[in-house]
Amino acid sequence: MTTVSSALAPLHWHAPEPALRILDQRALPAETIWQHCTAAEPVMQAIRTLAVRGAPAIGIAAAYGIVLGVRSGTQFDADLAQMCAQFAATRPTAVNLFWAIERMRVAGARTAGQPRPERLAALEAQAQCIAADDAQCCADIGRHGAPLLPDRGGVLTHCNAGALATGGIGTALGVIRTAVAMGKQLHVWIDETRPLLQGARLTAYEMAADGIAATLMCDNMAGHALKLGRIQAAVVGADRIARNGDSANKIGTYTVAVLCAHHGIPFYIAAPTSTVDLQCPDGDHIPIEERGAEEVTDPQGVRFAASGTAVFNPAFDVAPAALIAGIITEEGVARPPFSADLAAMVDRARARLDRRG
Amino acid sequence: MTTVSSALAPLHWHAPEPALRILDQRALPAETIWQHCTAAEPVMQAIRTLAVRGAPAIGIAAAYGIVLGVRSGTQFDADLAQMCAQFAATRPTAVNLFWAIERMRVAGARTAGQPRPERLAALEAQAQCIAADDAQCCADIGRHGAPLLPDRGGVLTHCNAGALATGGIGTALGVIRTAVAMGKQLHVWIDETRPLLQGARLTAYEMAADGIAATLMCDNMAGHALKLGRIQAAVVGADRIARNGDSANKIGTYTVAVLCAHHGIPFYIAAPTSTVDLQCPDGDHIPIEERGAEEVTDPQGVRFAASGTAVFNPAFDVAPAALIAGIITEEGVARPPFSADLAAMVDRARARLDRRG
Repeated sequence: MTTVSSALAPLHWHAPEPALRILDQRALPAETIWQHCTAAEPVMQAIRTLAVRGAPAIGIAAAYGIVLGVRSGTQFDADLAQMCAQFAATRPTAVNLFWAIERMRVAGARTAGQPRPERLAALEAQAQCIAADDAQCCADIGRHGAPLLPDRGGVLTHCNAGALATGGIGTALGVIRTAVAMGKQLHVWIDETRPLLQGARLTAYEMAADGIAATLMCDNMAGHALKLGRIQAAVVGADRIARNGDSANKIGTYTVAVLCAHHGIPFYIAAPTSTVDLQCPDGDHIPIEERGAEEVTDPQGVRFAASGTAVFNPAFDVAPAALIAGIITEEGVARPPFSADLAAMVDRARARLDRRG
Repeated sequence: MTTVSSALAPLHWHAPEPALRILDQRALPAETIWQHCTAAEPVMQAIRTLAVRGAPAIGIAAAYGIVLGVRSGTQFDADLAQMCAQFAATRPTAVNLFWAIERMRVAGARTAGQPRPERLAALEAQAQCIAADDAQCCADIGRHGAPLLPDRGGVLTHCNAGALATGGIGTALGVIRTAVAMGKQLHVWIDETRPLLQGARLTAYEMAADGIAATLMCDNMAGHALKLGRIQAAVVGADRIARNGDSANKIGTYTVAVLCAHHGIPFYIAAPTSTVDLQCPDGDHIPIEERGAEEVTDPQGVRFAASGTAVFNPAFDVAPAALIAGIITEEGVARPPFSADLAAMVDRARARLDRRG
């Protein structure tokens, strides 16, 4: 099978210093600005302000940020606990963040009693492992998901679940990249994804970078494109998947799911098992981050709205399991009803990690 | 019953000069700029470039533009024919434009043989009559539609079907204004309405001007707001209503209709009978204007998207009759199946105009 790749990566770990270099995605595609973080706080700030975004990428950034934070302190266990708590408070919805933090906590605990340099090295190795695992997850998600897409036709995606959101070729875009590499003739329909335009800025950029045919549209045009028969499938990422399959993803995903159901078009979620939260029974229990009004009223610093207007700005919504045709993970494709498949996949992924130690 | 009004008006006819003053809605709400048009061409340009927009307002502007064009010529009948043809070519979807042009043509034909000053006066009187009729239509639409809204709760609207789109208090917003004047406790949920942000710029401005409680959101958030139970009804305008009730309106309206159907929320169209095109059997026969990519990629002159991206930018879509609970006109509320009600309403409106002569 062809190796599928992307030239884009949102994070670079520079071990000698050490430092985490973060591609500031708020400036893309106009400018390529790298933030050079040698301490934990700038990494937290990058997560809070969406300089780095995308559930898997946030998890990786937090892992490296914890390394930086613990290194700069003196009390390994107390510093690690504090870092884990502080990173957990940066954003509420994406569960990969908490999953990565937990892996870092366990890696630290496992080295209890060892000399500090060994403990720091183990922590750094764990962060690198989280990043490498995510790249492999993306490749596996692509491999499992690509056969679900039609041999030719339109594929709708929302937000950016691509290389810029992960440590590899992306989740939803990994599926598309893999399908195209297999020879499928796909045309990608990109929702611009207001308010922060991750579709227009990032997904359009990724598709252009890889030479994949794509058309950008405003979010409210997808329904019309579906009605015209231009779209045969939809695939998006996820920030948290509840036990029953309800999937939180970028605001607007719920509407895409409803539109696909109305048109009898399959709607897929693509995400690593680290996105699955078995503790969470259903979508009603997923906390939905609400962000500031200015993202809606003043995008890119330009006044869009009448002043004094009250604003609703939820960053995510939930596609209910009933509207999802399949959840594509690195372990395969979970089908409705999702709970049994998802639990088995999470178990398999966990067992694999445990075997590796 | 309380008189319902709005302080806002998109057009002013200044008879002594004569001139049509057009409020440039592209600059709202940041700036209030009036275009002073003493000839037909600037009025056509204002329609083409959306300085004036909204189906009824376009019809009124074209009527006054025809007056200006015929006055500046020398051959009344030939000039009138040419003006009618040129205004008909400015925008393709809103049928009120063609309806107003036809009324002007008939008014001109009816004065054949009279002296030129009388003919010009009759043409001007007809344009003023079209404007006054539209104000009355809005009031009647409000009166018929207000009882359909809940006594308290959220009402979703899309784009701007308000005072700025009409010669009166608006169609969809006329219904909301009248309901609020009746004492209903409504909260208006405003879709920002990409790409041109008529919701964020114009509807939010109108609601603030009239002190009506409102919340602005991105188009892709309405689904989530519906899921949270915050919206109990939706009402929007229309640019063309086919004989079977299929209704073309601003892009995104179709998605609103699908979402309302999914949630069992009534979705209403509010428009004068001049918007009904009985020659058009259904929505598939309504021409949908596609506009330039830069509206999507560079709103307000700010780069939003990766460069070199292909863009889909339909200005309208069609809410199918099956998803519409009622079409509110100045003659009452048409109910499904709409064809009989709509035909009867158009007949009644036409008979009223004919009686007046």
